[in-house]
Amino acid sequence: MSPAILVTGGAGYVGSHTVMTLLERSDNSEYEIVVVDNLTNAYRSDGEKKPEPLKRIEEMTGKNIHFYDIDIRDKEGLNRIFSSHNIECVIHFAALKAVGESVEKPLEYYQANISGTCTLFEAMRKYGVYKLVYSSSCTVYGEPEKLPLDEAHPTGRGLTSPYGKSKYFCEEIMKDLCRSDPKWMIISLRYFNPVGAHKSGRIGEDPSGLPNNLMPFISQVAVGRLKELLVFGNDYPTIDGTGVRDYIHVQDLAEGHVKAIKLFKQTEFSGFHAVNLGTGTGYSVLQMISAFEKASGKKIPYKIVARRAGDIAANYADVSLAHRLLGWRATRTLDDMCRDTWAWQRANPAGFRS
Amino acid sequence: MSPAILVTGGAGYVGSHTVMTLLERSDNSEYEIVVVDNLTNAYRSDGEKKPEPLKRIEEMTGKNIHFYDIDIRDKEGLNRIFSSHNIECVIHFAALKAVGESVEKPLEYYQANISGTCTLFEAMRKYGVYKLVYSSSCTVYGEPEKLPLDEAHPTGRGLTSPYGKSKYFCEEIMKDLCRSDPKWMIISLRYFNPVGAHKSGRIGEDPSGLPNNLMPFISQVAVGRLKELLVFGNDYPTIDGTGVRDYIHVQDLAEGHVKAIKLFKQTEFSGFHAVNLGTGTGYSVLQMISAFEKASGKKIPYKIVARRAGDIAANYADVSLAHRLLGWRATRTLDDMCRDTWAWQRANPAGFRS
Repeated sequence: MSPAILVTGGAGYVGSHTVMTLLERSDNSEYEIVVVDNLTNAYRSDGEKKPEPLKRIEEMTGKNIHFYDIDIRDKEGLNRIFSSHNIECVIHFAALKAVGESVEKPLEYYQANISGTCTLFEAMRKYGVYKLVYSSSCTVYGEPEKLPLDEAHPTGRGLTSPYGKSKYFCEEIMKDLCRSDPKWMIISLRYFNPVGAHKSGRIGEDPSGLPNNLMPFISQVAVGRLKELLVFGNDYPTIDGTGVRDYIHVQDLAEGHVKAIKLFKQTEFSGFHAVNLGTGTGYSVLQMISAFEKASGKKIPYKIVARRAGDIAANYADVSLAHRLLGWRATRTLDDMCRDTWAWQRANPAGFRS
Repeated sequence: MSPAILVTGGAGYVGSHTVMTLLERSDNSEYEIVVVDNLTNAYRSDGEKKPEPLKRIEEMTGKNIHFYDIDIRDKEGLNRIFSSHNIECVIHFAALKAVGESVEKPLEYYQANISGTCTLFEAMRKYGVYKLVYSSSCTVYGEPEKLPLDEAHPTGRGLTSPYGKSKYFCEEIMKDLCRSDPKWMIISLRYFNPVGAHKSGRIGEDPSGLPNNLMPFISQVAVGRLKELLVFGNDYPTIDGTGVRDYIHVQDLAEGHVKAIKLFKQTEFSGFHAVNLGTGTGYSVLQMISAFEKASGKKIPYKIVARRAGDIAANYADVSLAHRLLGWRATRTLDDMCRDTWAWQRANPAGFRS
């Protein structure tokens, strides 16, 4: 059997772009791609076997993706996948990810994100698969003690949402796993703020309901799905009073995952490594609006409203470890992020349902 | 149906003493007692339906205990219990608890202690049961920043074992649960070092394998099951160089749980409350040895060996909140703890298998 990469949550936003990048690049052609996704955050047309993003990726690349509509908490389902493919490593995206919703539904978040992850790890161990790339978040740092945030910054302090805690807890579990058995090789990628879309405009971010994140909110205003953008607070101690974040192009992010997998080939590598993925530069909400207006040629009406509970003023990454360890660096600019988001949104005003 | 208290892990050490206390005291006679235990840390004789500690409690009290040999991760099993009884509140002891073992088997610990607890909470919510007493530990404080430890001391920092982290994670999950829904009433009892046994000498601590904790180690040496006690380090900055802990009689601890349940009757109570259960006084290993020698009339040979990784020099509780909130205070002395441990150990040299 050919070696395979298992991508959990591979039909979601970052997951699908990573699958696309894996299939686009000829140096990964040795691998089969196996996706498991319970379709919580991915659209599938009636009567179709595969979710829409994966269908489009297959069309664009001419390659096949093995797809399983299974929840990672389903032990038997995972056994079926691991016994049907020669899985060499796992990229684990599958998780619930809406910060606000997690406050309303903590049990659902902990069960999906913690129990699900532990069940996946048990299956990996059972089938002798010890190589893992984990989808973590800068949320684990809580309120920054200093900027830029490097990987030595304390984690887990003052976390305000079950979502953020679930990412932190998973990192702690993975550290313990690596301490218990040196066979584990785990890279936890701490994403800053993923935005943008594949340059084809055929796959992109497709949030259900009102977007929680700035970029899809802006682009849905630009395309006319929403009337105006809400800007949560303009009295932060930042360049223009609005929140500053380290936005990173999802294609750069996807390439970070591919680089992480290459690291597994180095036999001296083992244990748990947390690595920031960002550009290292922060932009404010108003700067984003302005860049998006330039890219789209559309005016983005916005209204300043109260700060959201739990939001911080600014964060951006120290990205030197990603360069040193993975040989990776973000190459796409804010203008690229806006252009590609707009291309996706314009071509797919209602997301994958378009 | 009569109201019932569900005790998870009710056949274990602290669980069985709490069940005994609930059944002994006439003011709890309105309640049926339902125990769920997967028998990981409880002995059941061949051919018997109920584990030995529960059988003995039934003999001593003349009362019936409903027993289910079910793992709390078994959703259907929990549904069966909740639909068969009129459960009013839950005392949740069920967990894996060996610090050293947890370092070897982190996944097993996280699955049992986190996934198990979340599955229990889902069942409680499903059946409209929102009152919970949780079995927590002073381990959540990590290395003390100051002594005595009060409940405002930071938790979760520098925890060295998956066991300790699992207790901390569960506390965070319960806080989030209470924030998400004001119906929840949760008291998390942070035990210091439970020792001793019921005064009858018929139930007590019965560790499988080499004891991890000091008191059962001492008593097994006293009864001749072990040759000598290992004392891990005598160069700590304490009264005699050996580790200092806040030992608390398991009967005092059990009474703390009963007091917590009484608090649920106060309608103004809601949310998450963490409460220390200790005596407020620390004793060193050498002080414990000496007290046990006095109680048992036996010489306890011991050998000083290297410190254990992760052990701290000293801890003891500020117990004022327990008194204020629960009207509870430990009443039993170190001599009581040693006397009752010895009575149990002498009458049951091989524990419940005797």
